[in-house]
Amino acid sequence: MSKGAVTREAILDTASSLARSVGLGGITIGTLASRAELSKSGLYAHFKSKESLQVQVLEHTRARFVAQVVAPALTAPRGEARIRALFENWLAWDQQPGGCLFVAASSELDDQPGPVRERLVRDQQDWLDSIAEVFRTGVSEGQFSGSPEQFAFELDGVMLSHHMSSRLLADGLSVERARVAFEALLDRARV
Amino acid sequence: MSKGAVTREAILDTASSLARSVGLGGITIGTLASRAELSKSGLYAHFKSKESLQVQVLEHTRARFVAQVVAPALTAPRGEARIRALFENWLAWDQQPGGCLFVAASSELDDQPGPVRERLVRDQQDWLDSIAEVFRTGVSEGQFSGSPEQFAFELDGVMLSHHMSSRLLADGLSVERARVAFEALLDRARV
Repeated sequence: MSKGAVTREAILDTASSLARSVGLGGITIGTLASRAELSKSGLYAHFKSKESLQVQVLEHTRARFVAQVVAPALTAPRGEARIRALFENWLAWDQQPGGCLFVAASSELDDQPGPVRERLVRDQQDWLDSIAEVFRTGVSEGQFSGSPEQFAFELDGVMLSHHMSSRLLADGLSVERARVAFEALLDRARV
Repeated sequence: MSKGAVTREAILDTASSLARSVGLGGITIGTLASRAELSKSGLYAHFKSKESLQVQVLEHTRARFVAQVVAPALTAPRGEARIRALFENWLAWDQQPGGCLFVAASSELDDQPGPVRERLVRDQQDWLDSIAEVFRTGVSEGQFSGSPEQFAFELDGVMLSHHMSSRLLADGLSVERARVAFEALLDRARV
């Protein structure tokens, strides 16, 4: 990577971390300049506008999500092992400081039309499709039956409930409850 | 109610509606003054500070939530009929413009310590307790078995997934998926 690309990645890491605690809407060229100790004019040169910055934060976070959650799961055997890996990778992802940015951004942006929301909608749809696709490998291996989209809807619900219980309520039983819910989903899916 | 109390309720209705679209953090004496066409000094007299305003918006919304979601469900027969009523009342509640404020506030405030977050934590805990309590009436009627807290965790997940799918993704199948998930939870709970 060029020096400019390295700087840009480092700034986007800082911005992604800031967004996880204050929300994507809290990420402006100004707040980021003071956090990253960079000049506002330098940040404008990299990111042009607040909206473009927020879209790039989502794209950057999505690349990390794919690398940490989705891609490693795809190396597990098709079907149950792969869906377990996807779930466990997501639990680890949500334990980073501030939790999963996509969960927070979903309620933040659902009433804010524009390019940032459009980017997020595609990301969320791709995530649900990824879960459904991994479920489908279990169907074609003869392990699972049922609707992959219904499974994705319900597994996402388990993750959202865990995010809320562990982060807002600091419920120490949350991970255990999420795993019990996950096993019940698998039991129902098994042929 | 006194004239002052009527005015206060009307202002809190407006504030609650505004918070559902822009977030609780977007509710300041200033934004509310321009939306409600009231003077900032008049609003200060009612609400003292931004933080106190946000806490009162949560308290006001909680009272509406209890009146529209929880209280009517308690008139249904104990057990399955009551848990169905609670679920359907919540679905109707989440269909109001902007959806359920508590869902949006949960991710917004999970990293923002202070009295507003503390109020929200108590509200969310009470809501999970209400679900568990209704489930328990089904256990004592001999209809259900299993952990009421686990059921509450999972039912809340179904609701959160529906909120995201219907509001962010505008998925027309979301209500149907939520009902399928709810029936599966009941099937598992049945003795």
